[in-house]
Amino acid sequence: MEIVFTKMHGIGNSYIYIDLFKYHYADELFSSLAKQISNVNTGIGSDGVIVIQPSENADCGMRIFNKDGSEGTNCGNGLRCVAKYVFERNIVPKEHFVIETKSGMMHVRVVVKNNVVTEVIVDMGAPLLHRENVPMIGDPRDFVIHELFNLPSHSLFVTALFLGNPNAVFFVENIKDAPLHSVGGIIENDSRFPERVNVEFVEVVHATELNFRVWERGSGVTEACGTGACAAVVAAILNGFCRKGEDITVHLSGGDLVIRWDLDDHVWMRGPAAFTADGIYYFS
Amino acid sequence: MEIVFTKMHGIGNSYIYIDLFKYHYADELFSSLAKQISNVNTGIGSDGVIVIQPSENADCGMRIFNKDGSEGTNCGNGLRCVAKYVFERNIVPKEHFVIETKSGMMHVRVVVKNNVVTEVIVDMGAPLLHRENVPMIGDPRDFVIHELFNLPSHSLFVTALFLGNPNAVFFVENIKDAPLHSVGGIIENDSRFPERVNVEFVEVVHATELNFRVWERGSGVTEACGTGACAAVVAAILNGFCRKGEDITVHLSGGDLVIRWDLDDHVWMRGPAAFTADGIYYFS
Repeated sequence: MEIVFTKMHGIGNSYIYIDLFKYHYADELFSSLAKQISNVNTGIGSDGVIVIQPSENADCGMRIFNKDGSEGTNCGNGLRCVAKYVFERNIVPKEHFVIETKSGMMHVRVVVKNNVVTEVIVDMGAPLLHRENVPMIGDPRDFVIHELFNLPSHSLFVTALFLGNPNAVFFVENIKDAPLHSVGGIIENDSRFPERVNVEFVEVVHATELNFRVWERGSGVTEACGTGACAAVVAAILNGFCRKGEDITVHLSGGDLVIRWDLDDHVWMRGPAAFTADGIYYFS
Repeated sequence: MEIVFTKMHGIGNSYIYIDLFKYHYADELFSSLAKQISNVNTGIGSDGVIVIQPSENADCGMRIFNKDGSEGTNCGNGLRCVAKYVFERNIVPKEHFVIETKSGMMHVRVVVKNNVVTEVIVDMGAPLLHRENVPMIGDPRDFVIHELFNLPSHSLFVTALFLGNPNAVFFVENIKDAPLHSVGGIIENDSRFPERVNVEFVEVVHATELNFRVWERGSGVTEACGTGACAAVVAAILNGFCRKGEDITVHLSGGDLVIRWDLDDHVWMRGPAAFTADGIYYFS
């Protein structure tokens, strides 16, 4: 069957977007579609599928399906792309609006020049810091900040929190030495994280600048993870490397985001979004 | 600017196809387009770009641009896709026709069921067996069959020949043990192959069935290489494992090809081709 799609990316984090305002496809399709279309050899190639759909409670809704067909809860880069999509395609003709996701209502603001969205600012909400919220096994009301984390091969120190997704943040001296491939999958599936976890490595360049690399739950190493970058900023503040209320630039493999953990506890993420292609996919 | 594209694949070897019969784009574009559009994060994702164009000497012509922007000479999987494209889209409404490539005129035949091309058979021409044709240093008129090939780490036996590209074939007991990643790049760039070489590992399952893995010159490990699979069959016959004139099934990572080295010395390759998507790419 033919599926009408749009490919977009936010600093290299690319998804195939399916517009359910305009086209109608059965919900049962998306998990297998995500697996097939994400394959660069036999499909299009992407980090997954994002469905843009009407919502009864917000201006629009979105669902995320990872490469492996599992459903994700939130994606910062994907949110910026959805915001650009619904504004530029006249689905939501407002500069402030609300997108419903599996992990809640997301407030976004588009920065517009000549009817083109040049940047999107997303209110990522407040991080959840209790261990039970990550979730991570252990005392449910503890915070997980610079906690010894033993692996068979060596030991690390973890800061863990929930922000859209479960996140485990590890600080390194030099981002080039981040053991992404060697331990990413091991930590993602470690039994201490019963819902698995995004694994983030962070180098503190100085108090307003971080280098960042990520192993995403269900996807492996990706160029960019917006929620992960926000989690990195929260973790850097919890560890005393950065300060609340300041704009912090995070360098991801695919580009930069500017993130602020505000005094009201909300995390704000600002960054670009881009259209790559529009087309018809032959799904079999 | 907007570029109209089609994505197709032959057993997982995927290219972005640009139709110059229907659309007009400047020749200077294709090298940078190939680099940008092949990137799965910020572009579509592919092994490169293939331009389908009118030819004064054949039914149509094709040019190949690799991921790195360099121009290639030939691609067996790409040829099958071009044949399916020009037949099904009524550019060449014949079942036997000729495609002009940088490495010569290629004769193809499409197998058609209900106006759909189910398989394409390509005459890959005669292999060149003299050492000077591979090219490989040493006596120019020698054949290179089961020749001792020393590496710093260990020794292998090589069979080398030219078929579309330079090819170095190594037989292994079990395809799972093929040292693709450990020696692929070393052999590709070995000074004994002055124009570099495709590196192929082959397991003989029996006289009409081979398992095959490939390290492609300029690309590294790929799912499938049509010319390499043909070279593997020629090498298997030269070493006495298979026979001329018989159909031999080659199992590649991305799927199967049926290859025959005919008594008239031509190599015939038969396999599938598939449309993945049609669309518009936003090239910047």
